[in-house]
Formats: sequence, C-alpha cells, structure tokens
Amino acid sequence: MAKSSKPGSSAATKARDAVTHKKIVTMAEGVAKRALGGKEPIVAIPTRARSNTIWNKKKGILQMGEAAQERQLFNLNQAKSFMQTMLHSSSVKDLIGAEKTLSLRGMFYKGLHTVAGTKEKTFADQDESDGILEDLEVSLGALREELHIFAKKAGTVVGNITLIDSGDEIDCRRMGSGGYAIPSIVEPDVIQFKKCEAKFVLHVEKNTVWSRFNEDRFWEKHNCILTEGGGQPPRGVRRLLRRLNEELGLPIYCLLDCDPWGHYIYSVIKQGSISLAFESERLAIPDAKFIGIRAKDYKACGLSDDVQIDLNDNDIKRAREIAAYPWFEGHKGWQREIEGLLSNGFKMEVESLITKDISYVTEEYVPQRLKAKDWLE
Amino acid sequence: MAKSSKPGSSAATKARDAVTHKKIVTMAEGVAKRALGGKEPIVAIPTRARSNTIWNKKKGILQMGEAAQERQLFNLNQAKSFMQTMLHSSSVKDLIGAEKTLSLRGMFYKGLHTVAGTKEKTFADQDESDGILEDLEVSLGALREELHIFAKKAGTVVGNITLIDSGDEIDCRRMGSGGYAIPSIVEPDVIQFKKCEAKFVLHVEKNTVWSRFNEDRFWEKHNCILTEGGGQPPRGVRRLLRRLNEELGLPIYCLLDCDPWGHYIYSVIKQGSISLAFESERLAIPDAKFIGIRAKDYKACGLSDDVQIDLNDNDIKRAREIAAYPWFEGHKGWQREIEGLLSNGFKMEVESLITKDISYVTEEYVPQRLKAKDWLE
Repeated sequence: MAKSSKPGSSAATKARDAVTHKKIVTMAEGVAKRALGGKEPIVAIPTRARSNTIWNKKKGILQMGEAAQERQLFNLNQAKSFMQTMLHSSSVKDLIGAEKTLSLRGMFYKGLHTVAGTKEKTFADQDESDGILEDLEVSLGALREELHIFAKKAGTVVGNITLIDSGDEIDCRRMGSGGYAIPSIVEPDVIQFKKCEAKFVLHVEKNTVWSRFNEDRFWEKHNCILTEGGGQPPRGVRRLLRRLNEELGLPIYCLLDCDPWGHYIYSVIKQGSISLAFESERLAIPDAKFIGIRAKDYKACGLSDDVQIDLNDNDIKRAREIAAYPWFEGHKGWQREIEGLLSNGFKMEVESLITKDISYVTEEYVPQRLKAKDWLE
Repeated sequence: MAKSSKPGSSAATKARDAVTHKKIVTMAEGVAKRALGGKEPIVAIPTRARSNTIWNKKKGILQMGEAAQERQLFNLNQAKSFMQTMLHSSSVKDLIGAEKTLSLRGMFYKGLHTVAGTKEKTFADQDESDGILEDLEVSLGALREELHIFAKKAGTVVGNITLIDSGDEIDCRRMGSGGYAIPSIVEPDVIQFKKCEAKFVLHVEKNTVWSRFNEDRFWEKHNCILTEGGGQPPRGVRRLLRRLNEELGLPIYCLLDCDPWGHYIYSVIKQGSISLAFESERLAIPDAKFIGIRAKDYKACGLSDDVQIDLNDNDIKRAREIAAYPWFEGHKGWQREIEGLLSNGFKMEVESLITKDISYVTEEYVPQRLKAKDWLE
C-alpha cells in the first residue's frame, strides 16, 4: 500500500494550490493597483442567476452567461459585499498556505468579526458567507474544492475499483456492508483511480436501496461500481461520478424514483443546476442515463396498486416545469416519460419493487434494462 | 485478508437467526394454540410510552417498565394491528430464511397489499408499519437488527482499529479523507473487531467537524478512534460506540455543541431515549463523557462575541426540560452546565472555535480537556 500522507500536501496539490494562489493574488493586485492609482477599487463578479444561465445544447450542459456585475468599494450597497469578498479571499489564501481545508460553516466563523469602530458584524449569517464563496468561485474560475473549502459529505461507494485517497489505498471491493464514504473534496490531487475493472457505474438515490444492491453483491456479479448520494447528491458525489465517466470512460446509470424529484436529480447529474451553472463544466455528465423507475413499469412489471403514491398539486406543477426545461423540451423520450407520470397520476419509488420480491430490483429489473439497453438519456 | 462472504451467511449469523426464528415461531404457536383451543388469538405487546419508561439509576439507563397491552384479534380496535403484527412477523421469518435484510421502507412495501375481499390496505403508511416493527422488537425481545431490518445509515469512522465487516477487513487507519461508512447493522456477526490499539473514542456531532479532526490526523496523534453520527446518531452508530465501549473497554468522549440539542444527543448516547427505552440495554453507554463545548468556554477560551448564537424561547424551554431529566436532575455538574448556558443567553457550536484558529479544537481544546480530565459525565 502507498504511504499515508497528510491530505493536501502532495506535489499535485501544491501545483494546484499555486494556480489558485496566483488567481487570488492577481485579483488582489488588481484592486490594490486601482486604489494606488487613485481609482475606486472594484471586482467583477459574474452574475449567478437564472437570467444569466445558458443551455448549451451542443455540450448538453447548463452554463453561465457573460453577464457580470462590478462590486464597488465606494458604493453603499456594495461596500459590504466588496469587503466580504476580500475577507474570504484572504482566508482562502491562509488555508492554502496552511495546507488545510475548512467547511462552509468554518469559513463563516473564520471571517466573522466586528468591524473595527462599529457594532457591525462582517457577516449576518452563513447564507451571506456561502454566497460570497460562490461569487469567489466564479470570479476566480476556481472550484470551491480548489479554494480548500468543503461541505457536509454524503454518499458511499463499493465496487470493482481501487482508489487512492490522500495516499491511502481504498479497495472498494472489500468495503463490507458499510462502504467507503465519499469525501466532499475528490479532486485528482486527493483521489486517484488506481485499478478499475468495472464497466459501468450504477448510481442509486437512497442509501437503503444501495444497501440492497450491496447485500446482493450486484457490483460483483455485474462488474460495476455502486454509488449513492443520500438523495440529491452533493458536489463531491457528482464530481466523483463525473471523473469516473470522463477519466475512465464509464457509463453512469441512474436508478431514481419515478417522480419529479427523481427527474430533477437526474437533470442535475446530467446537465447541472442553475445555481451551480458555473460548475457544470466539471460536474455535469451529459451522457448519464436514466435507467428507471419508468412510468411504463407499472404495467411492464405487473405491479399492484400498492406501489401507487398519488401525485399532489405540487408534484404536477413540478413535473410540468421539468417537462419545459430546454433539455427535456425537445426530447421525445422525456416528454413521453413525464406525460406517462402525469397520466398515471401516481409516483413510484425504487423500493416499491419490493412488492414483487425483495431482490427483484437487483436480480431482474436492472439486469433486464441493462441487457435491453432500455433507458432514457 | 479474510475471504469476502455474503452478509448474513456466517455461522454466527446462523446461530443468531436460529434464536430469532424460534422466538417468532413460539409467538405464532401461542396464537395458533389459542385459536385451535377455541380461545381468542392474542399477543401481548409491552407498552412503549413515557408512562412505561423507568429511569434505572443504578444502571444509569432508561428502561422499559412492565406494562403491556394485549392485542386481540376479535377487538375492532385491535384487529388491524394484530394482523399487521402477524404480517410483519411472517415477513421477518421470510427474511431470515432468505438470508437477506430489508429497510424500514422495504418492510412497509413487503407487507403492503389490499386485504382480500375489501378495499382496505394492510398499512395506511410507513409510520404505521414502523410502529408495528418496534412492537415486534419489544415483544420478541429481539433487536431490529436481529429481525434483519435496517434503516438509513449515517456516520463515518477512522482511527487505530481494524474491523471485519461481512468478511472484509477494514483498516480504519487507511481510510483517507472519506472514511468507512458505518452500516445500519453492526451486530457482532456482521462486524468484528480485529485489532485495536486505540485508547479511546472521540465522537463528534457533525461530519464537517470530523473532517477537520481527520485532516489534522488527530486519531493518529492521540491514538484513538474518530466517529461522527451526522447529528443525532442513528442506531448503527450508537450500537457501534456501545460495542467499542463494552467489548474493548474504550471510553467514549463526545464533542457536541453547547446547546440543548447537543445536550440531548449526549443524553441519548448515554442513557438512551424514551422512544427506544427497550433498546437501552444494548445501545446506551452510561459512562460516555461530554468533553465540550461547555458554557464556561466562552470565558475560559477567551472567545469573542462572534461565537454567540442567541437562545430563543424554544431553546430555553428545551434546556429547562433537559435539566429536569431525572439523570440530570441530581447531577450538580449538569445543573451548573445548563444554568451556565441559560445565564450566558447564547449557544456555541464546536465550529465556532475556528474563530480562535482553524485547528484550535484539534490541537488545543480537546487535548487540554483530555489531559486535565475536564469533562462532564
């Protein structure tokens, strides 16, 4: 096994950090230069809003447009956020120097203090701090992970792959019933892929479903990697899936509930989200496949009415919104799927397949769909 | 490394399953015997309610009292729950026979059908199903885990211990930045402790705090095991901590927020909860220690007012309720602690120590408290 090393101290990390460090220094120098030249200090922050989100049909991902806002020091409405941006930039520089990472909550506390000579706090709450960090990501063109900031982690993995995490060799074939917990930061300097026989990734929504697949050793029988993201997968999970897809060429099959929430999760995995459109280039997986649950399964699998969960008004509204997403709008398969959901009038969960048999989903449903190449994409 | 095996197929599992199987058969035979003898079929279900919860001062845990209710088939109010109890018993017998486990949600679906000749479903919702499963646990005297039922998992571990999980060797010293995900079922037939040098367990509330400790390799420097439970730890995490405490004799130090929620989490880890009082014997850890955050830390650590989160009315109400718990009521240290929280008028999070320094909590706070044996218990 490789020697354990302190996370963040590898040569690859140092190289990556040098790039991020330079970006921060360049931004700071720009501000300083203007100030010393008698001009008002400003930073340009690309606009993170639906209005500045573009659907790149060719790439199949959501992207951020060109709109940007200037953040000025001598503007009463912007002075605070200008200073917050500088404050967090400085903290990130500290983190890089210290070779440490910090949580979003931690960043809030690190930046929090009373502005000298006033009773004003630097941040009103963590939301304000998180927003500034997203601004920083966009304006520096650096992932949050590259800024040494992590979030709450969620999600686990098992399967036919060996990873290196911070120098430790993780054999995902031998992770028992628990699995390896996917960290929040999975950039190449932290996580490397060592040996992979797997031919695809099966990503499921819930960790209870994951446990069913793991117990039935689906990944061993079908030579794959099995992941879950605790519902809507956090960035760490999405980034890992993206890297497995991009670097190892593995197809990503998503097994999600037949409801607007399942469709939304798929959409985010595939095309990215509006709020993180600036990260789609590194998070979205345009060729991710939706293997089920499908609206047609009620009849196709001969399910009983026990599996039906009535659609409520909000579900119907959400389903129509999702059908109108530009990337679903022109897609016949998805239009039919959402129409099927609406005409069924009910949702179905992956776990409802247990009404057929405990292992129906692992032994029949997914293998049949894979064999028949029956999925939406 | 040991050979991987299908979870649940070991000799230890078979032995355990035989015991559970017999309990179910005995219950079923009791019902059948009464029926064949012309008597009404009944089952006795111990009462799971605050009124039937006893504080066992000597053992230092919450326990269930002696009260029980008969569940009768020929009682209109009880017929449904009687049949639900039988239905779930039968499902559990199936699971044991199939050597499989199922989630709580899965059990709901497995038991769900329309009662023949009616339009009535066997279960209205999962809550009803979950309640019947808890009844079964109590009446059979078998842990949910022994009934082959699991819940959503949460929590991770790293540190100086090697575990065996379903035949796979998990070296928790080499789990990178992600860690080993603690499964929902950690009974001795699934998880064995192979080699442990660790002298104690540090359990933290949040996985972001855990990441800070892991990154600073606290467990290596202080020869311990580091766990987190994603907030209120699920049963799997509590049971693992209990086993580490009981079987390996490791003290459990809890690092939680200085607020009523942190105090409640500690109380549940230590004495058990009212809703799961029947499981305290196997989940509670009477000698678990609360190492912080303490109300006195505001002054003792020289913190700034940045760390203060005002107590709201509900916090004050909860703090007073917790102070009146019988196991805190006579405890001078805890009375002082909660009084301190109330007189401070504010809560403090573990992460607020970042206002001192990123690694203050790992390099100074916890080491100092351990050295000075400064904790509450």
